[in-house]
Amino acid sequence: MTTRRKFLTTAAKSAAAAGGLATIAAPAIAQSSDPIIRWRLVSSFPKNIETLYGCAEVMSKALAASTDNKFQIQVFAAGEVVPGLQAFDAVANNTVQICHSASYYYTGKDTAFAFGAHAPFMLNTRQQAAWAYHGEGKKLLEDFYRGFNVVAFPGGNTTTQMGGWFRKEIKSVEDLKGLKFRISGLGGQVLTRMGAVPQQLGIGDIYPSLERGTIDAAEFNGPADDEKLGLYKVAPHYYYPGFWDGTSMQHFFINSAEWDKLPKHYQAALQSAAALANIDSIARYDVLNPPALRRLVAAGAKLHAFPADVLDSAYDTTMELYEELSAKNPTFKKFYDSQKAFQKDASLWNQVSEFAYDSTIIRELRR
Amino acid sequence: MTTRRKFLTTAAKSAAAAGGLATIAAPAIAQSSDPIIRWRLVSSFPKNIETLYGCAEVMSKALAASTDNKFQIQVFAAGEVVPGLQAFDAVANNTVQICHSASYYYTGKDTAFAFGAHAPFMLNTRQQAAWAYHGEGKKLLEDFYRGFNVVAFPGGNTTTQMGGWFRKEIKSVEDLKGLKFRISGLGGQVLTRMGAVPQQLGIGDIYPSLERGTIDAAEFNGPADDEKLGLYKVAPHYYYPGFWDGTSMQHFFINSAEWDKLPKHYQAALQSAAALANIDSIARYDVLNPPALRRLVAAGAKLHAFPADVLDSAYDTTMELYEELSAKNPTFKKFYDSQKAFQKDASLWNQVSEFAYDSTIIRELRR
Repeated sequence: MTTRRKFLTTAAKSAAAAGGLATIAAPAIAQSSDPIIRWRLVSSFPKNIETLYGCAEVMSKALAASTDNKFQIQVFAAGEVVPGLQAFDAVANNTVQICHSASYYYTGKDTAFAFGAHAPFMLNTRQQAAWAYHGEGKKLLEDFYRGFNVVAFPGGNTTTQMGGWFRKEIKSVEDLKGLKFRISGLGGQVLTRMGAVPQQLGIGDIYPSLERGTIDAAEFNGPADDEKLGLYKVAPHYYYPGFWDGTSMQHFFINSAEWDKLPKHYQAALQSAAALANIDSIARYDVLNPPALRRLVAAGAKLHAFPADVLDSAYDTTMELYEELSAKNPTFKKFYDSQKAFQKDASLWNQVSEFAYDSTIIRELRR
Repeated sequence: MTTRRKFLTTAAKSAAAAGGLATIAAPAIAQSSDPIIRWRLVSSFPKNIETLYGCAEVMSKALAASTDNKFQIQVFAAGEVVPGLQAFDAVANNTVQICHSASYYYTGKDTAFAFGAHAPFMLNTRQQAAWAYHGEGKKLLEDFYRGFNVVAFPGGNTTTQMGGWFRKEIKSVEDLKGLKFRISGLGGQVLTRMGAVPQQLGIGDIYPSLERGTIDAAEFNGPADDEKLGLYKVAPHYYYPGFWDGTSMQHFFINSAEWDKLPKHYQAALQSAAALANIDSIARYDVLNPPALRRLVAAGAKLHAFPADVLDSAYDTTMELYEELSAKNPTFKKFYDSQKAFQKDASLWNQVSEFAYDSTIIRELRR
């Protein structure tokens, strides 16, 4: 028993003896003295992308509700405290206690960061969750983030993203040569090797750049979020699948010293609230994306699958890139080997389970 | 402020005045007097099916941890308090406060119960979650279960199940005629219409019945759970997909009077803990099923897809059944219409997102 607890227990006993509290206090009431804790959370996402920004609010509300408002986390949008892409650093250096961000934004620090969110041609949404919650990913990610003084819990997922908006059709891999494409991360590196010219642009600059033809294509997310940018008006060819974003998990990243100071039950409450936010995020996207896709197509978006030669060439290029990055960075290799082995088994299982079921449904709905 | 709270606040103030508690109590400490609550949970599942039984333990542990052990739920396996298939009734009549069960077990009360878990040829795992957490299913299910004095939260999912174990190959829909098949629920009704003879058997009776040839086939779950029954030795033909179990969600069902009596923060903590158990369950199955499938095939299980004529005939039979059940039961119709509309949009989105991504991965891994 800590000194504080012991003191409070003694105080409660005195109060009970003096005021007859015992009739209420025992055995049905536990006296507790939970600290009021107030944290600041920075999101990597702007408020107007409600699905992504909303994950932190869902978590924060669930946490406050389950701690009787004793553990309060105030959510700040990207740019309000630090720029969105500096959220992880703000946590690592304890400017704020917690952030909601995507691991792949930080591949500049270490290419292994990709695997916390997604890597091109790797896991799908359920596989990423399985690997991170119950597979080898759990310990790999824990140890990796701890190296930055950070504790992390999955806290959202955009699910498989689209391949983006193109001004002109892509008929073969040749059409990627010289293509100015707003894309970043490992996907950008793959496309560079295929002859495209990745561009870094803020979200607000995408529409005018496509309109003027300063860029030829841009990827953002899926229909629900893409719809807000209106890109179908200036780049109507909407490609799938986003092979560089087969899933895109976000995390709540927490400063490890702040985490270690929390009462154990606040830690547990935060962990459950993060799980709620994660499952809520996927469900929300799965409810919003289908009607958004319908509206986009009705408004003029032209859906295309990437040609097979683009996918094959992109896959081969990605595997070459992974071999090179593995040779350079043992941490990258450890993550890549783990996800690759998991994917091999999981993909076989998928072919006789959900993929087979989905194929059946698609076939029967078309008949 | 309730009388009890007011009294305790007054008592605390007196204690603070008398013993200098104020230095600790303000502003960093919130005095609270949370009741100790102990509930009993009955599971519909036996302990040796750890994945299914485990959901309740994951929830109960997370809940205890996040309430500093003040809200404790003791988990009982099927049969320890009531038989597994009476779990929902035990909650409805307040024999126990909470259970972990599958809604489709209770289609005998009302055929609409199917949609809380799964219905043949309806939603896949992510679609079921989306519909139940953020879609029309949320309110539909809430209102429906409230009619039985029950509050419910999703709390696990087996994901797409296999089509079961058959002593002989199924080469066409003709081979289903007279087939004695251990299967229940709406799937059993569909197969009856196709000429099969559904059998009700306890889990322990499946193996000897297949061995003796008393039955010709049996379905249970997916590889991880099926492996424990050893059915590949007596009925080696392992079919997919389980078109009657495209997903199989479980719920935590709670007596509504007990729920309404809970402090709000205990309600919130339980809700988050249930979400954690739900996501944990899917991740656990996704980690356990792939290697179990490999082991089963190595041990002699022969994997087969159901022939197209079986699937087509089963689909048509299911749609006829749904029309009849809709005509008889307006509640069934309400649920069915909602899931059918959701499936139509969601399946189109699936074809350009995860299904397209999974197809690409399968193709590239085979090249």
